[in-house]
Amino acid sequence: MTKPYFPAREGDPPPLRAEVRRRVRFEEVDSIGIVWHGRYAGYFEDARDALGERYGIGYMDFYEHGILVPIKQLHADFHRPLRLKEEVTVEATLHYSEAARINHAFVIRDRQGAVATTGYTVQMMLDRDRNLCMIPPPFYEAFLERWREGRIHP
Amino acid sequence: MTKPYFPAREGDPPPLRAEVRRRVRFEEVDSIGIVWHGRYAGYFEDARDALGERYGIGYMDFYEHGILVPIKQLHADFHRPLRLKEEVTVEATLHYSEAARINHAFVIRDRQGAVATTGYTVQMMLDRDRNLCMIPPPFYEAFLERWREGRIHP
Amino acid sequence: MTKPYFPAREGDPPPLRAEVRRRVRFEEVDSIGIVWHGRYAGYFEDARDALGERYGIGYMDFYEHGILVPIKQLHADFHRPLRLKEEVTVEATLHYSEAARINHAFVIRDRQGAVATTGYTVQMMLDRDRNLCMIPPPFYEAFLERWREGRIHP
Amino acid sequence: MTKPYFPAREGDPPPLRAEVRRRVRFEEVDSIGIVWHGRYAGYFEDARDALGERYGIGYMDFYEHGILVPIKQLHADFHRPLRLKEEVTVEATLHYSEAARINHAFVIRDRQGAVATTGYTVQMMLDRDRNLCMIPPPFYEAFLERWREGRIHP
Repeated sequence: MTKPYFPAREGDPPPLRAEVRRRVRFEEVDSIGIVWHGRYAGYFEDARDALGERYGIGYMDFYEHGILVPIKQLHADFHRPLRLKEEVTVEATLHYSEAARINHAFVIRDRQGAVATTGYTVQMMLDRDRNLCMIPPPFYEAFLERWREGRIHP
Repeated sequence: MTKPYFPAREGDPPPLRAEVRRRVRFEEVDSIGIVWHGRYAGYFEDARDALGERYGIGYMDFYEHGILVPIKQLHADFHRPLRLKEEVTVEATLHYSEAARINHAFVIRDRQGAVATTGYTVQMMLDRDRNLCMIPPPFYEAFLERWREGRIHP
Repeated sequence: MTKPYFPAREGDPPPLRAEVRRRVRFEEVDSIGIVWHGRYAGYFEDARDALGERYGIGYMDFYEHGILVPIKQLHADFHRPLRLKEEVTVEATLHYSEAARINHAFVIRDRQGAVATTGYTVQMMLDRDRNLCMIPPPFYEAFLERWREGRIHP
Repeated sequence: MTKPYFPAREGDPPPLRAEVRRRVRFEEVDSIGIVWHGRYAGYFEDARDALGERYGIGYMDFYEHGILVPIKQLHADFHRPLRLKEEVTVEATLHYSEAARINHAFVIRDRQGAVATTGYTVQMMLDRDRNLCMIPPPFYEAFLERWREGRIHP
């Protein structure tokens, strides 16, 4: 990933991180012997959920505030295939944005630390009437403020 | 399937049937080159849904009457593996029961008509409070009556 | 999709097309009641496979020439969610490229023709030793030539 | 599970066990908010694989001896649904058999130890020519012998 998916603007606080470990399951591997490309959305989701839980900003936290955060965009770049029983780490980073959207980038690394897959997701925010939010809900604004002020530790 | 999964009792009306065609997808095949056994639940579901829609007794019909019909039991016998792009028919048969349960048997056949997979599912009925129904809801009782009286055509 | 995923260069022959119909299955829908974003890779694959079979350039055709064509890049933009039992068409278009890569774009439309999802995949070509092909294999070169000469009908 | 799926015969050594922990993922949950019944084959597989690895008798061990061990039978009984983010243990037990088949039973328990799901799988053994093995391969016979003699510790 030579070019960042979400280039930081000057003054943005550094991304927040979370990581999960995962092992390639038999059911995930295709007839060529590699993880089928469509399964990676689930790998990314594991790490995104871990990050959301760690910082209290997961889809369940939004849901409790009446907001749905469906995926608007999914992207994956496959650098090296994953094989049966391979152990990997999936890292999610949340990139600062003041817009009503949630930008995560992902890196999957093998046991030697080599990058196997990178990608990103963009989520939008929908209110109770399923209308697109123009600004984030207050609880997330407060989170963004703490983040800007350096009070959230990556 | 030499022994029927749901032996008919004397006086029971004959089973109802529906069939769907399906073709093995790349994502369904495992590293050995055959459909992964866990995918068959979806094959069965396609045929069960088709039967439910055909006779107006699908899970959505139950749902509209406040009843959930979750799967209580799933069983599959694998006689012959299915391979990439193979075209199959999935037949569902609904077996008569006066109890508050729904018994479907399934047969998957290849293009030559040879049996590849058989299986069954049993569904129970839950009311609005998620309690187990002791008897079927009135709309399904009425359906069973029409079935008994030979007014539903298989 | 206001901006094309694969802008045509001057002189490129028009894209080739194929379309499949598909209906949202119960197992594809998440707890919010919409198709889980990770399932769309399978929707795209259905249409990509149909195109490959139609023109004799599917992954099985490559495989028979000793070439694997794994997915290098997957992208999806979600414009409108899909719901249970919704019927959609998935259109794949193959975009001309002289490089050793295969570029497909996808559009999923609902019954009214409204665009629900768009996306693309990029495939690379690997030879028998799993090395990246610098140029396409002869059978595909011949296909590209027929395409350029207008002898393949979209 | 009041009645065992694989009743022990007199003189059989006790079953072998392995257990994995797993947490319900967003992508596994259906529109009713519970794990879709078809996903449990993957839960069972996680525990079956763990047992195979623990005792050196997994499908990869068989494969290295030229034997495939496809699933012949799958059965699941659903006692209590699993919900989003619920943490469960999946226990696999391998039941002694001198026939050329592998019999596993499974129990999924929630955090309070209550049984949510039980089930079993039966695997057969196929030799290099894909013919059904009448007796287990030597390496597995040797394993069975050690098991009978009490030299394998559950």
